[in-house]
Amino acid sequence: MNSLVSRLLKNWEMLLLPILAVLAFQVMTNVFASDGSESAGHSDAATTFLWLAIVLIAAKLSSFVEKFGQPAVLGELVIGVILGNLVLLGLNFFEPIKTNPHIIFLSELGVVILLFQIGLESQIDEMKKVGMRALLVAIIGVVAPFVSGTYLIGPWLFPGLETTTYIFIGATLAATSVGITARVFRDFKKLQTKEARIVLGAAVIDDVLGLIILAVVSAMATAGSVELGEIGIIVIKAFAFLAGAILLGQLLAARLGKLFAKVNAGVGMKFTLVICFGLLLAYFAQQIELAPIVGAFAAGLMLDSVHFRYFKDPKIVAELREHMKGYEQTEANQHLLKKIEKHGRRHIEDLIEPIGHFLVPIFFVATGMSVNLESLFDVKIVLLALGITAVAIIGKMVSGLAAGKGVNRMIVGIGMVPRGEVGLIFISIGRGLGVISEELFSALVVVIILTTLITPPVLAVLLRRQK
Amino acid sequence: MNSLVSRLLKNWEMLLLPILAVLAFQVMTNVFASDGSESAGHSDAATTFLWLAIVLIAAKLSSFVEKFGQPAVLGELVIGVILGNLVLLGLNFFEPIKTNPHIIFLSELGVVILLFQIGLESQIDEMKKVGMRALLVAIIGVVAPFVSGTYLIGPWLFPGLETTTYIFIGATLAATSVGITARVFRDFKKLQTKEARIVLGAAVIDDVLGLIILAVVSAMATAGSVELGEIGIIVIKAFAFLAGAILLGQLLAARLGKLFAKVNAGVGMKFTLVICFGLLLAYFAQQIELAPIVGAFAAGLMLDSVHFRYFKDPKIVAELREHMKGYEQTEANQHLLKKIEKHGRRHIEDLIEPIGHFLVPIFFVATGMSVNLESLFDVKIVLLALGITAVAIIGKMVSGLAAGKGVNRMIVGIGMVPRGEVGLIFISIGRGLGVISEELFSALVVVIILTTLITPPVLAVLLRRQK
Repeated sequence: MNSLVSRLLKNWEMLLLPILAVLAFQVMTNVFASDGSESAGHSDAATTFLWLAIVLIAAKLSSFVEKFGQPAVLGELVIGVILGNLVLLGLNFFEPIKTNPHIIFLSELGVVILLFQIGLESQIDEMKKVGMRALLVAIIGVVAPFVSGTYLIGPWLFPGLETTTYIFIGATLAATSVGITARVFRDFKKLQTKEARIVLGAAVIDDVLGLIILAVVSAMATAGSVELGEIGIIVIKAFAFLAGAILLGQLLAARLGKLFAKVNAGVGMKFTLVICFGLLLAYFAQQIELAPIVGAFAAGLMLDSVHFRYFKDPKIVAELREHMKGYEQTEANQHLLKKIEKHGRRHIEDLIEPIGHFLVPIFFVATGMSVNLESLFDVKIVLLALGITAVAIIGKMVSGLAAGKGVNRMIVGIGMVPRGEVGLIFISIGRGLGVISEELFSALVVVIILTTLITPPVLAVLLRRQK
Repeated sequence: MNSLVSRLLKNWEMLLLPILAVLAFQVMTNVFASDGSESAGHSDAATTFLWLAIVLIAAKLSSFVEKFGQPAVLGELVIGVILGNLVLLGLNFFEPIKTNPHIIFLSELGVVILLFQIGLESQIDEMKKVGMRALLVAIIGVVAPFVSGTYLIGPWLFPGLETTTYIFIGATLAATSVGITARVFRDFKKLQTKEARIVLGAAVIDDVLGLIILAVVSAMATAGSVELGEIGIIVIKAFAFLAGAILLGQLLAARLGKLFAKVNAGVGMKFTLVICFGLLLAYFAQQIELAPIVGAFAAGLMLDSVHFRYFKDPKIVAELREHMKGYEQTEANQHLLKKIEKHGRRHIEDLIEPIGHFLVPIFFVATGMSVNLESLFDVKIVLLALGITAVAIIGKMVSGLAAGKGVNRMIVGIGMVPRGEVGLIFISIGRGLGVISEELFSALVVVIILTTLITPPVLAVLLRRQK
């Protein structure tokens, strides 16, 4: 607590930023109030450029929460909630963002890119290494919250709703956010501990399990009710799609890479191939009634730098390697060369990163903006949200018990708690399908915010105590 | 000619690609013919992912024209023309791309990003260095084609049209494409010759002059006719905007950079600031009735790596620099360190590049797709296009005479010929404003394609002869 206060005092200028922002926005509202409405239809694209810039800057400014040990995604959500609810204070300048079709499209493209990135960063080999422990933690971490969400807390706190809605609550509680979990361990430089590896492995498996649950649940929501046999078919379809995509990818990617490299072996072609793999698999997943993000994740998993060995190195790598040729073969120089080559291999993720910086925050800010704080003025909903949050935390803590001996089970359990972007994707889809109501959506967003917010400080205490 | 044939023979597999592509598309049309229409409204976003992937892959495949010394932009245009006119052969699979609102928005964003990139690559200092010669070439290179287009060839070949239309023809002929010109000199490793520097300097000045002409012409088209005094106001407004943006940029960018770096000094923040500068200036340019691309270009000109010195280096630079600390201070190592640091400084352009790879080709392919080949079945229009092309080439060749002594004036003149993306932007805007008809648009696209296509081989011959 002390360090929080001292950091606040040290970074007091930071407090000026939101004030400046509000002032700037106030001025803008006055200046453009008359203009804005007149020229609304005049140039749709240019107006969208303004919204894009506002959303992106707001998202990045909100990353100051990182200074207080919070993940950036939390800041993006919260700034979105603020921008989206300024209308409650009579400031309706930002309202058009909510319904701008291009912003909505870009945010959908943003989730696809995010899951594609997560897929690129998850290696099939690493998933094998963490082995049985991670698998056990993952399965319990999905089953415990899913069952308690669907059969206990859902029907108990929200009686009289459809089964599909309860299942969506369960699915949301079952989600684990790889991004947030990994980020916390990385921030504390604990990525190489046993606990971190188990949590990361389990979170990756949870992602796949979660995506399958999502496919099942989405199909149920679309088709009304679904029989057990049909669920089986969906599960098989999802597995077949993932396995097929990965197998075909391993077989074809290198050949396609070679063929396309013949046309043009430049960085632009490499980038285009990578991003188009993601887009096409997102489209094909949707064609067989899976969520586009499932396809994007599979595309990311199946791509490997090996498939792009026929392409030229990025300019800096080629230049530095060329330059290193004149050097003596000392051990230090060999080491430097290895570092340079490693950068060449990492290049796929690096190429996608700017697109991620551009599109991913749009999704989180837009999601935050769609949270209606008015429905939270209802004390009952807030209490419900707190109830679900308790179950959400306990459900994941239980999974920590499966981590086995010689491991701090508390750390594993807490590491599984944040729901983050995956939970948000679930409830966004649920709301889109008309299964999750405004109120339930707002309550579940509070659950996601709380689980995401609680993890970093608690984990920090546990990691420090362990040392 | 011989080398063209031998290269064609050497790369014969390349000829398989378009055939493969057509076959794949044929299969897709059959497979999705029934599905596609049914699920059209089902998920707009996922369908757009498919169109995006098709546009991007088509654009990159078309870059095989580079193997024949042609600029990639030409390939993108031509593949766009092909995709957009397959409907003449009864293949209407790609027709929805033309009217997809998200593709249209992304293509508009693409031009903004392109002009932003050109601005980033143009240094105010370098423009000063090439000095008077480049200025003279630029002015003659704008005035000669503009006057002959507006007052001679326009009224002569297309009698009875509005003055604004003639001015748009003149403006299109006045444009010079920095991108294409620079690319040709770079491909032949002649970027450091006197001729190259004069052409590049003149092309940059032409860009600014062209954008001012565009602002004037757009205002004329919107307001009907414009008095000389009003034109003066527009010119002053354009100059004031450019000068103001650059001055304010120099004053504020470093301060803003410092402030934002306090919140977050990561690469993501740097990227967001850079891209938002571009987007905001595009928006503000539009607010004062200039084209958004004028604002994006100004934003690019005003940004300098110095403004981002408070941000962290990209990961590879930080890592390599850290590693180099343990090295002895030999001259070779110092040189290597300088190369690494240079990479850190170049980083703004590198960050924007993937966004450019993603969005810029969409503009060119979409522009190509909007060319209606049917109107070119009219022999008269083709003859008109050839006539305009002759004037377009002669008008620019004249400007080469101003390059002064000790310089190959033919090279300078030919270097100014390609109209490329700038010309396309002009006629796109003209058509959007209803000033340029379908037929004139198609004819001017032929002019742009021809001037763009003629330059690389002719320049190649001249450069080889000079040696």
